[in-house]
Amino acid sequence: MEVTAEKVKELRERTGIGMMECKAALAESGCDMDKAIEILRKKGYARAEAKSVRAAKEGLVGSYIHMNGRIGVLVELNCESDFVARNAEFQELVKEISMQVAAAKPRWIAAVDVPPHIVEKEKEIIQAQLGDMKKPPAIMEKIVNGKLLKFFEEVCLLEQPYIRDDKIKVRDLIAQLVAKMGENIKVGRFARFEIGQE
Amino acid sequence: MEVTAEKVKELRERTGIGMMECKAALAESGCDMDKAIEILRKKGYARAEAKSVRAAKEGLVGSYIHMNGRIGVLVELNCESDFVARNAEFQELVKEISMQVAAAKPRWIAAVDVPPHIVEKEKEIIQAQLGDMKKPPAIMEKIVNGKLLKFFEEVCLLEQPYIRDDKIKVRDLIAQLVAKMGENIKVGRFARFEIGQE
Repeated sequence: MEVTAEKVKELRERTGIGMMECKAALAESGCDMDKAIEILRKKGYARAEAKSVRAAKEGLVGSYIHMNGRIGVLVELNCESDFVARNAEFQELVKEISMQVAAAKPRWIAAVDVPPHIVEKEKEIIQAQLGDMKKPPAIMEKIVNGKLLKFFEEVCLLEQPYIRDDKIKVRDLIAQLVAKMGENIKVGRFARFEIGQE
Repeated sequence: MEVTAEKVKELRERTGIGMMECKAALAESGCDMDKAIEILRKKGYARAEAKSVRAAKEGLVGSYIHMNGRIGVLVELNCESDFVARNAEFQELVKEISMQVAAAKPRWIAAVDVPPHIVEKEKEIIQAQLGDMKKPPAIMEKIVNGKLLKFFEEVCLLEQPYIRDDKIKVRDLIAQLVAKMGENIKVGRFARFEIGQE
């Protein structure tokens, strides 16, 4: 299969990884979206271990307690320098992301963090819901992938619509500050505890 | 082997579980400490699923941000009623435990939460450090178990000496409020993020 611009766009949206890397992964996987994600995951791990890219090792841990302590959130936002970590806009971003996590209940940071067995399960559910639509397999795949993107927009922090402006994603909110600061900024980890919920 | 009071005491200290249950587990395991913990773990899981005991489903999530956001802690402390959750002393306990986690870096809540392979690894390390002391196996086992307790006191929140009074454990601090309130109180979960550390 040909590596179309559309496929590259989809992979970028699902992984948040740059165009050239997505194109290469699709070429390597024979345009198989899941295999391409797997390839990017493996590369990501290898890269993290090699520590060869500009490391986002500084940062800030912020918290947000909601509903008189029934919900609590902890977020680690990383950047490259202590200078950026101490910047008011960076601190504001930590606060915004904490409130996002409290309100929108993401379960993972990015689509690549969703365990493969959960993605498979979700695909099965989508297919079962759709039933037999008597459409060609290529069209069906497109419909399933579209619904899978919706799933990622629900459960992945970076793919979620920003709570204060649903025209942009949390990913875009972070990208705006990255552009302004000229530094790599990323969500390192988060925790969300809610009384009475696992 | 006989189920001695000493063994029961040790198992109670390691698990925080009541005397009768510890005694029964030791009897079932032929006085093997690790097997007894395994038995209690299995029972604990089964019980949590059955939800037959008095459930600590209410509670409070508290946070503590330390060193200008380089360290952040989130703690869920559970109790049985909303009444206790709103009590000032309960709220104070959440704060104390959050500060404990920030300062003393526990990795698990109780000794039973430490994965078996970590306990095994730790035993190997202890045995290697001790070398051949030319002592009877029963004495050796006692020495190793004693050192293992020290390990649990380092890495398990409930076993740690309380940061403000190292004569008592965090477990005792909680037990004091349980006695006062007459309600089951337990640490549901905690998270500790530190910039630059996994």
